[in-house]
Amino acid sequence: MSLLETNIPTTDSGLPEVFASVESEVRSYCRNWPTTFETAQGPWLTDTTGRRYLDFFAGAGALNYGHNNPVLKRAVLDYLAGDGIVHSLDMATTAKREFLETFSALVLEPRNLDYKVQFPGPTGTNAVESALKLARKVTGRESIISFTNAFHGMTLGSLSVTGNSMKRAGAGIPLVHATPMPYDNYFGGVTEDFHWFERVLDDSGSGLNQPAAVIVETVQGEGGLNVARVEWLQALAELCHRREILLIVDDVQMGCGRTGPFFSFEAAGIVPDIVTLSKSISGYGLPMALTLFRRELDVWAPGEHNGTFRGHNPAFVTATAALQTYWANDSLTAATTAKGELVRDRLEVIADKYDGVSARGRGMAQGLKFEQADLAGEVARAAFDRGLLTETSGPADEVVKLLPPLTISEHDLMSGLDILAESVATTV
Amino acid sequence: MSLLETNIPTTDSGLPEVFASVESEVRSYCRNWPTTFETAQGPWLTDTTGRRYLDFFAGAGALNYGHNNPVLKRAVLDYLAGDGIVHSLDMATTAKREFLETFSALVLEPRNLDYKVQFPGPTGTNAVESALKLARKVTGRESIISFTNAFHGMTLGSLSVTGNSMKRAGAGIPLVHATPMPYDNYFGGVTEDFHWFERVLDDSGSGLNQPAAVIVETVQGEGGLNVARVEWLQALAELCHRREILLIVDDVQMGCGRTGPFFSFEAAGIVPDIVTLSKSISGYGLPMALTLFRRELDVWAPGEHNGTFRGHNPAFVTATAALQTYWANDSLTAATTAKGELVRDRLEVIADKYDGVSARGRGMAQGLKFEQADLAGEVARAAFDRGLLTETSGPADEVVKLLPPLTISEHDLMSGLDILAESVATTV
Amino acid sequence: MSLLETNIPTTDSGLPEVFASVESEVRSYCRNWPTTFETAQGPWLTDTTGRRYLDFFAGAGALNYGHNNPVLKRAVLDYLAGDGIVHSLDMATTAKREFLETFSALVLEPRNLDYKVQFPGPTGTNAVESALKLARKVTGRESIISFTNAFHGMTLGSLSVTGNSMKRAGAGIPLVHATPMPYDNYFGGVTEDFHWFERVLDDSGSGLNQPAAVIVETVQGEGGLNVARVEWLQALAELCHRREILLIVDDVQMGCGRTGPFFSFEAAGIVPDIVTLSKSISGYGLPMALTLFRRELDVWAPGEHNGTFRGHNPAFVTATAALQTYWANDSLTAATTAKGELVRDRLEVIADKYDGVSARGRGMAQGLKFEQADLAGEVARAAFDRGLLTETSGPADEVVKLLPPLTISEHDLMSGLDILAESVATTV
Amino acid sequence: MSLLETNIPTTDSGLPEVFASVESEVRSYCRNWPTTFETAQGPWLTDTTGRRYLDFFAGAGALNYGHNNPVLKRAVLDYLAGDGIVHSLDMATTAKREFLETFSALVLEPRNLDYKVQFPGPTGTNAVESALKLARKVTGRESIISFTNAFHGMTLGSLSVTGNSMKRAGAGIPLVHATPMPYDNYFGGVTEDFHWFERVLDDSGSGLNQPAAVIVETVQGEGGLNVARVEWLQALAELCHRREILLIVDDVQMGCGRTGPFFSFEAAGIVPDIVTLSKSISGYGLPMALTLFRRELDVWAPGEHNGTFRGHNPAFVTATAALQTYWANDSLTAATTAKGELVRDRLEVIADKYDGVSARGRGMAQGLKFEQADLAGEVARAAFDRGLLTETSGPADEVVKLLPPLTISEHDLMSGLDILAESVATTV
Repeated sequence: MSLLETNIPTTDSGLPEVFASVESEVRSYCRNWPTTFETAQGPWLTDTTGRRYLDFFAGAGALNYGHNNPVLKRAVLDYLAGDGIVHSLDMATTAKREFLETFSALVLEPRNLDYKVQFPGPTGTNAVESALKLARKVTGRESIISFTNAFHGMTLGSLSVTGNSMKRAGAGIPLVHATPMPYDNYFGGVTEDFHWFERVLDDSGSGLNQPAAVIVETVQGEGGLNVARVEWLQALAELCHRREILLIVDDVQMGCGRTGPFFSFEAAGIVPDIVTLSKSISGYGLPMALTLFRRELDVWAPGEHNGTFRGHNPAFVTATAALQTYWANDSLTAATTAKGELVRDRLEVIADKYDGVSARGRGMAQGLKFEQADLAGEVARAAFDRGLLTETSGPADEVVKLLPPLTISEHDLMSGLDILAESVATTV
Repeated sequence: MSLLETNIPTTDSGLPEVFASVESEVRSYCRNWPTTFETAQGPWLTDTTGRRYLDFFAGAGALNYGHNNPVLKRAVLDYLAGDGIVHSLDMATTAKREFLETFSALVLEPRNLDYKVQFPGPTGTNAVESALKLARKVTGRESIISFTNAFHGMTLGSLSVTGNSMKRAGAGIPLVHATPMPYDNYFGGVTEDFHWFERVLDDSGSGLNQPAAVIVETVQGEGGLNVARVEWLQALAELCHRREILLIVDDVQMGCGRTGPFFSFEAAGIVPDIVTLSKSISGYGLPMALTLFRRELDVWAPGEHNGTFRGHNPAFVTATAALQTYWANDSLTAATTAKGELVRDRLEVIADKYDGVSARGRGMAQGLKFEQADLAGEVARAAFDRGLLTETSGPADEVVKLLPPLTISEHDLMSGLDILAESVATTV
Repeated sequence: MSLLETNIPTTDSGLPEVFASVESEVRSYCRNWPTTFETAQGPWLTDTTGRRYLDFFAGAGALNYGHNNPVLKRAVLDYLAGDGIVHSLDMATTAKREFLETFSALVLEPRNLDYKVQFPGPTGTNAVESALKLARKVTGRESIISFTNAFHGMTLGSLSVTGNSMKRAGAGIPLVHATPMPYDNYFGGVTEDFHWFERVLDDSGSGLNQPAAVIVETVQGEGGLNVARVEWLQALAELCHRREILLIVDDVQMGCGRTGPFFSFEAAGIVPDIVTLSKSISGYGLPMALTLFRRELDVWAPGEHNGTFRGHNPAFVTATAALQTYWANDSLTAATTAKGELVRDRLEVIADKYDGVSARGRGMAQGLKFEQADLAGEVARAAFDRGLLTETSGPADEVVKLLPPLTISEHDLMSGLDILAESVATTV
Repeated sequence: MSLLETNIPTTDSGLPEVFASVESEVRSYCRNWPTTFETAQGPWLTDTTGRRYLDFFAGAGALNYGHNNPVLKRAVLDYLAGDGIVHSLDMATTAKREFLETFSALVLEPRNLDYKVQFPGPTGTNAVESALKLARKVTGRESIISFTNAFHGMTLGSLSVTGNSMKRAGAGIPLVHATPMPYDNYFGGVTEDFHWFERVLDDSGSGLNQPAAVIVETVQGEGGLNVARVEWLQALAELCHRREILLIVDDVQMGCGRTGPFFSFEAAGIVPDIVTLSKSISGYGLPMALTLFRRELDVWAPGEHNGTFRGHNPAFVTATAALQTYWANDSLTAATTAKGELVRDRLEVIADKYDGVSARGRGMAQGLKFEQADLAGEVARAAFDRGLLTETSGPADEVVKLLPPLTISEHDLMSGLDILAESVATTV
């Protein structure tokens, strides 16, 4: 029986009806981009009608090196063709050994990071859950400090430190053991940094449970491209160190070079106690995640945290190839910084034309914020109609968020920004 | 720089030292099987020295069709070579459409299951977390009934319904909102079924919070191959239905044919409200998971549960190929049942020879329980030395658990059981 | 302005309308006994119309020595008249010193109980809250084992270990950190004692959080006069001791001689780690409570648990007088035992006359259980109409519960039982 | 056997040894005031040696009308002598009817407060627990906003909204469902009111669970005599009203005229949704508490919150007499305001003499704050040595807190302040 037929029945949305009839109502991206994608290459997606889309979304940051990057493709095809072991839980494999050696040699050692590496399961939320568990185990405390508009994942532990009220409500139980603090610039510069946080820590009568850890993103992608200043991150790290609170940097979206350096926190010169990585770590869009932590914190008992897909070897293979290709020197960082400046300049030009529009972000995670929040969605739809994929984010979905592949050509980057400019022009 | 060198430094364990020096102490399987695996085919793994191992572990149930199954390999190689989209979040893709159509046509429709399908993230624990969230959202209640020796995953929600005290302690916070009930035969047949559970539900003064859902495995793999009888499952389903408690069957390990039928609960003729699937659903060891639920329960808001790796298209491709290859008719079910009987017969023969050894399990999830618990680990080590991979499970690791690929030849199956018999003989 | 007027406006219930118009809907006893009580003496209450009621309720066990007991009355009048200090928080006072000396000499020492005494606040729930806090502090564990149909109080900690679903729902938050176990005879004798409890403690995979303490009533008054057998209590104490779980006996209702001996657990020859006392400890219906615990458990920091009314000195005065009057020898215990047998004989006679009626209880906490639950309420109403106050209890309010003052004359006791017999006769 | 002997053995502290040998280590006030008090009258306490102490502590605010106030004493003696019913749970009694009528006529009606009255149990923490339960039941939400340095009680629900870290740790479980916000002037006037609170409420991504209620003290007594400004309270009330969050004023310590008006919130002209009262409501130091709430919020089911000592009739009798004596007109309010100004003037004079000393408080709840925190304790000890009882409060016990009886004569008030001035002079 062939299921591939020429005439697939579709619904009004234009999508094949199986999506509406069989897939849960929880589906979301396909609602905004009602077409069926089939192939992809670099920054380009092609749908079943042959139409091409420029991808300024990049798998929500999971495709920093573009779709089906040819170097990584070669590596994974060779590996699979040669019957390299695909699934291995946490057995030792050649592919894992090479990944660990490469990650150590190209990422940890050059940065003087004496981290142990945990494979916590293949998704960002697995990494966050293991980070929270470890922080609690090490300190013997329960409470975690999170930040306003943080996003850390959808499983129960990660959701507790996530800000979005709609997603929190999905838990169906009261989310506890986490207290939100204001992220950098939450008060528009009026209040000094850590005023409230330091005060309640100092005050034994404040009612704040002594925290095990602080979890922070250096740039809040889902939260609306809120950027923490370098000096704010430094002050946060210093505060945590001074008070013996562990600092967890969730680098799931902003790591792997998205803001320029491999780790987004490098710009601040800080060394977190625990780091989570996922999304682009495999480089090819394959599920993979890491939890990194200072060697002294490695108090896990064998098997105390486990999971079936911790040993996803094709992801190790592409991850190794990605590190060797892009992180043996600092040329990608330099290129990303340069492209980020191009993007920023262009966004500033657009923003300057309109009231209530402003540019925001860092490196290749940038966007436009619209004071009239619903304009952001309209701009994104207009862009889609013109063949550009962009996401909205922020508590009111008020930011058009751009996450182009880091490897995009300058020409394609400019084309996409042209489309964005047009889309804003016809919308605002 | 080549990281692949002839002489990799190793530690006393025989493993390359990078595992001890860089990977977290949480690693576990590699401690029992101290060799580096490189390639795999069907039920065979090969390590870097060229030694072959017969795999009666099968990725903890993630490789029901064997390693690198050639049909699936062809499908994934073609897909990747053709630049099929790899990573898509929950966008519509050709690969996803084909999977949904195939799953609907070959799994749901023939079984008259009117389920919606959610892609909750690519691991079993993502599926369990989404199932618990949905059950709580639908019912407006918080409490979940789990069973003694259940295993549902390592993220906070799943861990709350997991029995193992070591893994629970890893949470670092008190695990709440779940109450354990005795699994079938927990009292060795002395107490009648659901005596305690029904009694506390009946009694408005019992102190049991009214549950949103019951979550159950039909066979507890991690819990020690505890098998729920068909009549027990039927009574549980009836009890849930009568009292308007949702029934969640966690079929992550026992689904996809492990016990014979596609869903392990088919034998009992019950229709759970919610079902979780993962491990072997992709067929190729690639991360993938599904949450299935009755159409009426699909009250999710768009995006209320999300995640980066919900659209792992290579997994959809191999999943589709696996369904088409193995589930277009009932021949695999018949073969598994037959092989399961062979295994059982052989295990009974072994068990009968020794005091304190008994056979247990169902279908191709079987094993030997040792009253002197540490013998199980010794048998597994002896088997490894003879080239057979087996896992131990149960609260005291007292069960040698066999999960051979369903597609294993009868010859290889018998060879493995020969090794097991020898290993028992030299150990007990 | 005189608020006392001859013609107080009343509502249909017969009660002055201020109760309906000003007092919260939460009021309950006044709904069943719609009259305004004015004075009281021994077992007799008199309402504003001069009608007398025989009190088989005794302040829910707070008036074991009857209303306005003349010896205690003399003591409290003298104390108040002499400007003895009334309110003292936890300052040292003469009245408190005398109480401590008397309690030590007449209660603790003769029973070889090396307990420290805490004044946790003046109500039973204060005592239970402090007991739970201490047990958690001492053990470093959170979880508490409670029993089906337990009643321990209405503040959040106590409510968590209380069974009644209506009262639990009043919390408005999910009640956690407590797990119910079956009370003695919960399965009508079918299941052996502690089968389930021991099994889940033994099993490291059971999912039961290791408990800090077990809290138990020897007779469950609110729960329906469920009586734990001596051998069950002994087995429970032994189980707790063996497994290093603290045993808390909540003797708020059954202590102070209600079942015969001063402490209800004396009959079982056990020594709990922690004991709560309240209700009749002051002897005069004045708010007072005690938490007692083994000397080694006294790890409280000064002021770690406090409260405004811990030093209610008039209650200390009447408590001291009550101990001196009734507990200098064992005559009250003997009398209570004898009266209890009278009551039991009479209740058996009544019960034997009707199908679905049975006698239950111990000492002077006895009653009749009606299989047709609503009959209990009807009997209690019929008794009220005849001038006898009785309460109903049990999860379905299916038990008419008798708690006459221990000091009631045999004549009054028999009169009350006559009324009860008539009330049953006209109802069933 | 007489337990009253001339020569009571004492410990080094000077206290009879029974306190150290029998009473729990949790005792605290008796450690600072190592003498045994015997009688009391007005603002004077007398110990067993005949020494008199001027009481600027007044039962932590439970004795606003002085010790053994003669009018109330007459009422309670008459009531007890006449065999008025003492203990009544929530039965209707004459004493309760008169209290309700008087409270309604003299407190509620003149202030246009359409409140229902609940008797939640006889202590402040009972009132707070019932207020939190009701707020959660009415709104269907769990989360409560409390303030830094709040004190609301020692049972689990109240403790969750209390700030003091030592007392919180006593819970032995993580305290959840409450989030602290900065009390008025928490940042020394630098930050504008409700900046943080409003911002996180506005922001659907803030991670703050939507609160059921805010609980606030108008002056934080235990927290260190922190005074909320009228405009801050008004803004808080307006914020709660606008956002449909219930406003609970905990007036346990500051109510009953402590700051001047009957309710401390009257000065701000606000009408809380729920009010808790205890301490001085009985007027005589007898355990009693009330929970008041807007009529529309009275959604309690009968008996949903209960307790043994809700009907403490002697307390109703003294409460009625106190209301009739002191609250039939506004003369007490005027007198308290005037005395408060005298106190404040004198404290300012003292404070002005020393660096690092400042006056704080409102009405007759005033004190001195010492920047060098341990001086406060030294001053209180010096005052005790001179025959003046004062308490310290604040997170570091840095405030000497004065709560003289409201009915104290100006002469005694000045004498006490003289002693205080001397004590400061010899200490600082």
